[in-house]
Amino acid sequence: MNDELYMKRAISLAKMATGHTSPNPLVGAVVVKNNTIVGEGYHHKAGEAHAEVHALDVAGDNARGATLYVTLEPCAHYGKTPPCAKRVVESGIARVVIGSTDPNPLVAGKGIQILTDAGIEVTTDVCMDECIQLNEHFFTYIQTHKPFVTIKSAMSLDGKIATFTGQSQWITNESSRKDGHILRASHDAMLVGIGTILADDPLLNCRLTRDELYEALINRHDVSIDNTLEVHQPDIIILDSQGRTPTDAKVFTIPNRKVIIYVAKGCPEQRRIALANVGAIVEELPTKSVRQGRTTDVAIDIKKIDIQACLEHLGEQEYTSVLVEGGSTIISSFVESLAFDKIVTYIGNLVIGGANSTSAVGGTGFATLHEAPTLEFASSRILDNNIRIESYRLGREGSYVYRHR
Amino acid sequence: MNDELYMKRAISLAKMATGHTSPNPLVGAVVVKNNTIVGEGYHHKAGEAHAEVHALDVAGDNARGATLYVTLEPCAHYGKTPPCAKRVVESGIARVVIGSTDPNPLVAGKGIQILTDAGIEVTTDVCMDECIQLNEHFFTYIQTHKPFVTIKSAMSLDGKIATFTGQSQWITNESSRKDGHILRASHDAMLVGIGTILADDPLLNCRLTRDELYEALINRHDVSIDNTLEVHQPDIIILDSQGRTPTDAKVFTIPNRKVIIYVAKGCPEQRRIALANVGAIVEELPTKSVRQGRTTDVAIDIKKIDIQACLEHLGEQEYTSVLVEGGSTIISSFVESLAFDKIVTYIGNLVIGGANSTSAVGGTGFATLHEAPTLEFASSRILDNNIRIESYRLGREGSYVYRHR
Repeated sequence: MNDELYMKRAISLAKMATGHTSPNPLVGAVVVKNNTIVGEGYHHKAGEAHAEVHALDVAGDNARGATLYVTLEPCAHYGKTPPCAKRVVESGIARVVIGSTDPNPLVAGKGIQILTDAGIEVTTDVCMDECIQLNEHFFTYIQTHKPFVTIKSAMSLDGKIATFTGQSQWITNESSRKDGHILRASHDAMLVGIGTILADDPLLNCRLTRDELYEALINRHDVSIDNTLEVHQPDIIILDSQGRTPTDAKVFTIPNRKVIIYVAKGCPEQRRIALANVGAIVEELPTKSVRQGRTTDVAIDIKKIDIQACLEHLGEQEYTSVLVEGGSTIISSFVESLAFDKIVTYIGNLVIGGANSTSAVGGTGFATLHEAPTLEFASSRILDNNIRIESYRLGREGSYVYRHR
Repeated sequence: MNDELYMKRAISLAKMATGHTSPNPLVGAVVVKNNTIVGEGYHHKAGEAHAEVHALDVAGDNARGATLYVTLEPCAHYGKTPPCAKRVVESGIARVVIGSTDPNPLVAGKGIQILTDAGIEVTTDVCMDECIQLNEHFFTYIQTHKPFVTIKSAMSLDGKIATFTGQSQWITNESSRKDGHILRASHDAMLVGIGTILADDPLLNCRLTRDELYEALINRHDVSIDNTLEVHQPDIIILDSQGRTPTDAKVFTIPNRKVIIYVAKGCPEQRRIALANVGAIVEELPTKSVRQGRTTDVAIDIKKIDIQACLEHLGEQEYTSVLVEGGSTIISSFVESLAFDKIVTYIGNLVIGGANSTSAVGGTGFATLHEAPTLEFASSRILDNNIRIESYRLGREGSYVYRHR
């Protein structure tokens, strides 16, 4: 059956807009007549034409009697653009092959209804897993109104991110770090703690060229459409209770992206003003008491920015995905709040050792195994003598999400 | 070509004796005439007949003009048994297909020489990587006169082996633990620290049935020879400077295996006597000063059993392989002494977190990344929603060893 072949091409097309369609999903479409592609396209940017419209425009009259392959169920509602399902009916398409249905309550099967009511043959669930993973960010966001959270962790085989003297560059190799930059290009925003800013003063941009990115994301032999989209640079989010980010930090030097600094009550007013003056968006978030310490005997309660409040605020700003690249402390905040959907772990080919060397996940940790978040491993592969592990949190929010339908 | 097919069968046969041939290698042999197997066998136990002899005995007159497949170069010297190469010549075999040559200086090409001198056609290096891995323990031992050291580590995705309250059962699942028991059956001995004995009082035996073990090791459809060998129980080695192992420890309850307790100078005489009285072999080893502590400012020197001296002593006793299953401290002793060949890591599907939760590799650790031992990753795979990673130490001793020829 050629359905899978054309659907895979539609998926590759969808990926051409990686990072650019938020808060919309990535969608690709292919129109096929007599085993020949007569039109194809992908959704470029929220507010602009949907994938089906691009593909049908190219197909023109050839759409009549043809088959449309589309990675996501065509929309049925008037949003920023008219409903695609109607446009498909008008085009004279005879058959529609759909990768995954749309969990958006405004669509959810209604697109398919319009098509079948018009007498169009509809086939669903072709390359469904791939089509759902393609939009795992969007699907979680549209269900939970909070961004999909990916934690990126780079560590030694024994779970360390630095020696006891603090040396950390580099534990993983260039291939792992390049792969990490694909994550940056694929997320709406990336988040770090003030510790990372003060210690490393990083640029936090995606340093892949367009060719490197698309070489990694899609099969270039499949897709020859000119791609004029630059590599997406994620917005920057800094958790910085006291507003200690220096005004000359390198994160402010990358153009065309937002830098959001979340501070807590008690952050000095002059710091807020200074940071706003260099272009940062400074927002105050509520804090939460967190028990810190090895045992309850020596535990002290400290105030930390409430991670769930942070994610809710980001959801309100229509961020569909956040990549957490923080150090040991920030990652532990997300882990202890059960505020993550996925972990991508890169393991360097060395053993650092040391009871006091910095661990990948710091903080207090969970007292019992029963409390610890459990995972579903999706892949584990050797990448140029490093290892890349992809895992999803079991029981995470959003029912219609990749691998947890 | 059928060479690979018959060699794979010979490898499966060799594995029938897993754990039983030490200090000899595992060897399997198949005699094939007119595309039919006319004889096969494997080496059962040091001092008994070699694989080729078993196979040729079964083949009888059918060996004349036939092809012999053998996983390791036939021996050329008079040891406990006469040289196999001579026996092969006498049998009338026309062609010999060899998996790997023998690094033993007493053999090293001499076996092949005898065969070719007699006009026998010899093909080498068929399934070579598999045949070398089959005997990675033996090959390292015969070169270095010390056992091959495998470290087994079971941890959470973030490198923890217990919560900060000390809870550790279970981080990995039953499939990982069963796989760990295959390691036990495959090693001459397993080694733990006194900490493990005092904390857990474990049996430290291999709890797989014969069927479970051979199901995992070989393709049962390939090999139908009756296997009367029981699952090998590794000897037990305890690093216990002060001889604190309780005389009623459960390790003493498993029959037909040695328990060696390595103590340091200063171990009370009555403890040595008490342990010898319950069957332990008590040996004193030299100690080495180890710098303990986070920084040089607070470092203190403590005396620990010298790991290299321990391995030399085990080599003298003809142990070809040791499985280190110690806790955080014992594993760090082997890592910091660069005294390991391989690490098998099992990753459970959870995140424990905690700066003070016990790490997989404790101790002081390495101060710089440059000093840390580097690894070659051999495999990384998902095993029933846990992950199993196999890695070898780069630059380890023994030139002719698996993956580092």
